[in-house]
Amino acid sequence: MTITLADLPTPSLILDRQRLLNNIARMQGRARDLGVTLRPHLKTAKSAMVAELAVGKGGPLTVSTLAEAAYFAKAGFTDITYAVPMAPAKLPQAAAIMRDAPGLKLITDNLDVARAIAERGRALGVRFAVLIKIDCGLGRAGIAPDSDLLLPLAQALSQPGAMLAGVLTHAGHSYHAKNIPEIERIAEDERQAVLLAASRLRAAGHDCAIVSIGSTPTALFARTLDGITEMRPGNFVFFDLFQAGLGCCGMEDIAVSVLASVVSHHHGRNHLLIDAGGLALSKDTGANEHAPGTGYGRVCRPGDALPLPGLAIHDVHQEHGLIGSMQGHAVEFAAHPPGSRLRVLPNHVCMTGAMYDRYHVVDGGRDAGGNPAVIAEWDRVNGW
Amino acid sequence: MTITLADLPTPSLILDRQRLLNNIARMQGRARDLGVTLRPHLKTAKSAMVAELAVGKGGPLTVSTLAEAAYFAKAGFTDITYAVPMAPAKLPQAAAIMRDAPGLKLITDNLDVARAIAERGRALGVRFAVLIKIDCGLGRAGIAPDSDLLLPLAQALSQPGAMLAGVLTHAGHSYHAKNIPEIERIAEDERQAVLLAASRLRAAGHDCAIVSIGSTPTALFARTLDGITEMRPGNFVFFDLFQAGLGCCGMEDIAVSVLASVVSHHHGRNHLLIDAGGLALSKDTGANEHAPGTGYGRVCRPGDALPLPGLAIHDVHQEHGLIGSMQGHAVEFAAHPPGSRLRVLPNHVCMTGAMYDRYHVVDGGRDAGGNPAVIAEWDRVNGW
Repeated sequence: MTITLADLPTPSLILDRQRLLNNIARMQGRARDLGVTLRPHLKTAKSAMVAELAVGKGGPLTVSTLAEAAYFAKAGFTDITYAVPMAPAKLPQAAAIMRDAPGLKLITDNLDVARAIAERGRALGVRFAVLIKIDCGLGRAGIAPDSDLLLPLAQALSQPGAMLAGVLTHAGHSYHAKNIPEIERIAEDERQAVLLAASRLRAAGHDCAIVSIGSTPTALFARTLDGITEMRPGNFVFFDLFQAGLGCCGMEDIAVSVLASVVSHHHGRNHLLIDAGGLALSKDTGANEHAPGTGYGRVCRPGDALPLPGLAIHDVHQEHGLIGSMQGHAVEFAAHPPGSRLRVLPNHVCMTGAMYDRYHVVDGGRDAGGNPAVIAEWDRVNGW
Repeated sequence: MTITLADLPTPSLILDRQRLLNNIARMQGRARDLGVTLRPHLKTAKSAMVAELAVGKGGPLTVSTLAEAAYFAKAGFTDITYAVPMAPAKLPQAAAIMRDAPGLKLITDNLDVARAIAERGRALGVRFAVLIKIDCGLGRAGIAPDSDLLLPLAQALSQPGAMLAGVLTHAGHSYHAKNIPEIERIAEDERQAVLLAASRLRAAGHDCAIVSIGSTPTALFARTLDGITEMRPGNFVFFDLFQAGLGCCGMEDIAVSVLASVVSHHHGRNHLLIDAGGLALSKDTGANEHAPGTGYGRVCRPGDALPLPGLAIHDVHQEHGLIGSMQGHAVEFAAHPPGSRLRVLPNHVCMTGAMYDRYHVVDGGRDAGGNPAVIAEWDRVNGW
């Protein structure tokens, strides 16, 4: 018997495989055209199936937690960069993961941590490969490319127990660009920052094999990545309303949605109530920066996850979502009776996805009633 | 060997048992003084151990998902109100849960759903107990207490397959009160709304056994609950920075915190970087409504979870938290070397807790080095 979206519990996380494949093909094309390796950031998908579609079994990945690193290592991925600054207490766990994934790489921007990595690596009988984190303008982590700390960091990592693997940066400020030319400029800043750090390291006699940049916007709009060896976009596999507002994708590219049920009508307050709230959708409202009125997500037809004109999630409580009209028109209640289903495009899919332990995958097939068929369940690795 | 907070992976969710017990005793005292049953909302704790401490094994609970209902039913709790408007497709699951928890109660405010509940109940061979949801000013769900829909709803539920169990309301707008007298006024509105609905039902010949109110602020500050049978506060077991800002608790009452590691220093940007970000803390910024500058959480000493003066989480990315100074002073970097640990009080513990599958419980004991001992792990039921 075919399972369809009409059979799933709500809320559920739905993944459109065809959109996913299109998004992956687009980014693979970008990496090819730019002459760099695609090392996707799996913090978004947290799924071995998605990783395999993006880079093939074993291929290079980026992760945001050691839980992800351990999961992907067990799934056969051996080349993994853990791209959050390393906490010294996590080194024994990292060493254990290296038994399955000898290509595990860490990052730091701190001299005390770099020394701790080398010391613990020696004590643990491993050699940790470490990238130096460079700040290219985001101001979150990383040293400036012209920082006096760069060479001492490289020196601290060139010891038994550690090795310098390269440099890495992330232009997360591209998310707040006003237009595509601004993303292009930020992409060039990202490239120049890490190139400068790499050239300083090489001039001092260090090997700097990996020169890594990456965010979905800069990976999509960089004019050149000359000198760069790899890029680490993550969000692109699914996209979301933030990326659509920024101009990185269309609504029809967003591959993940939340399936919800209408549970009540409130005519006097002009809203539909659904069973997907702040946990099912997340409380991330970032998408409103580029598309005011988006609220907590855009409401779509259940059959094809394309937006219903003018409907958005106006408010969320823990398990309640309130759908209202974006233009203040009367909501068409009759089109959405209690018990009917809707799909909601997420504002920020990295946050929304983290609330679910699996994807229900659809791929264009339907049952006789027109309900999208669920072809698979793919797991996710959440937590730490 | 004693496990302490120094041994745990970061981020981890820490629960202070003594603060929990104090918070529970306080609310039990309120319920006793006001002459109502305490039916705590487990959407916050999602933990059978917390439920048992609050009401004893089997005792009356409120839940926000059927996953919670099923979990508590299996844990021996038989009297459970699922306090989110019912979706008709969930009725078979509810009927299955009633095998373990015959006292399961549903809610609705919609006539079509009420009819569906009665019809499906009859078909499934059960009688669903249903409360009518009343709006007392929040404007999220529920009908007005003087609504023309009240008696038709009661009639639709007085059929084979269903039964009217009472009326229920939630004064969630108390969270946005400016001061305690305003909370007291909202608590009285909450009481009056549901009393009016109950009296109209009784005048029409309906039984209305349960007259249910509840939010943590109104449960704490209601002057009288005459005529009310039960209250359903949830957040009070843990409290959080939002509740502290509102005046419901002190910082020293907040029972849940996130343990994090310092991973870098950024002197130029005057921030400490920790490994707890938007997923570990949540992106809920509601606490800033009452306490501007709170950011994404207050930073505490690891030993006792009391705030370090002037430190708050200024920004979060998925796995990064940036700690800055609330008053713009220089951060005392030397006091927090990389690898050291901190605890962060959450803005909204219902959202933060949902990212973790367990609590690490501390209870005042310490090892020789002064590190709080972990006495237990308590599970949580997340998802749907």
